Amino acid sequence: MFRSHGFAGTGMRDIADAADLSPANLYHYFRGKDEILFYCQDRALDRMLDAVTGARAASGPAAARLQRVLAAHVLTMLDAVEGASAHVQIDSLPPSLRDRIVRKRDRYERGLRQLIEAGIASGEFTAGDPALVTRAMLGAMNWTATWFRPDGRHDAATVGDGIAGFLVRGLERQRVSAQGAAGRSPRTY
Amino acid sequence: MFRSHGFAGTGMRDIADAADLSPANLYHYFRGKDEILFYCQDRALDRMLDAVTGARAASGPAAARLQRVLAAHVLTMLDAVEGASAHVQIDSLPPSLRDRIVRKRDRYERGLRQLIEAGIASGEFTAGDPALVTRAMLGAMNWTATWFRPDGRHDAATVGDGIAGFLVRGLERQRVSAQGAAGRSPRTY
Repeated sequence: MFRSHGFAGTGMRDIADAADLSPANLYHYFRGKDEILFYCQDRALDRMLDAVTGARAASGPAAARLQRVLAAHVLTMLDAVEGASAHVQIDSLPPSLRDRIVRKRDRYERGLRQLIEAGIASGEFTAGDPALVTRAMLGAMNWTATWFRPDGRHDAATVGDGIAGFLVRGLERQRVSAQGAAGRSPRTY
Repeated sequence: MFRSHGFAGTGMRDIADAADLSPANLYHYFRGKDEILFYCQDRALDRMLDAVTGARAASGPAAARLQRVLAAHVLTMLDAVEGASAHVQIDSLPPSLRDRIVRKRDRYERGLRQLIEAGIASGEFTAGDPALVTRAMLGAMNWTATWFRPDGRHDAATVGDGIAGFLVRGLERQRVSAQGAAGRSPRTY
């Protein structure tokens, strides 16, 4: 919906046009652009938090659970309907709204790190620095907002699966087999 | 030197102060902020291009050569002296300077992708989408500019080695052994 460098130059009328609403209708729900940006970011983070909370509570291999969380993150970021790729633009927000997003984002990062730590503790993931790996993953995923094009070669779900698969492989202690490793990314994207 | 959202609000006097130069001296070398930003980005990209060109020409395991390129990238990004973390801010540049950086950045991305493709061709790396993996790597590395603090727990070299090690592991088809895999990241960062 909003590209990472496009929001500052976007007016309420542009947003209303994009959402197929009259400006009056848009103002009925939101007091201004800041509120819309906050709403998009907040809703995207809720989806991501739901995914990580669900994965931590679930059973099964850590790799498969982490894969689901990462794929959901990318899909949420790139989903044009949700407008969530705006969620990297927190500096555009006034401090009070910004702080609420930062706190929620920190909570999500913590959940992701704890999921990785649990996989290390169970012996499924290689030891290392979970905090650093978490940030590397967040970077790889958030960066998609700078280059993904909805009319590009691959849709958001394919990009999400591909990036998630690559990131999870970086943590796995043992591959089931060479076939198993190749089997997770059978196609060229 | 310049944080990813700090440059727009930085004046020539601030830059002169940070570089311990008089504003007159700074204007002797640069006509304005745009030229300084361009110079920083251009120089950073030259270092990165040197690293990837050297790695493609070198012999030895693909994993070790890729590891060196990625570690050099992060170190260049985070190196306070070079001011290279500004290199993600290309949208601040006027179009003519921006285009030159974009072309050089594309050349670097292509070199990185070709290094990965060569590793896949030799059987050292898992098959998959080299373009997607390249962008995931660029995201993980460039994102460090948003969170790295020079006074933080780890220096730039440690962060670079850690992120590079994680990203290379995501590509390796076979680990030498469980010991070998753990041995590449023996410390917690």
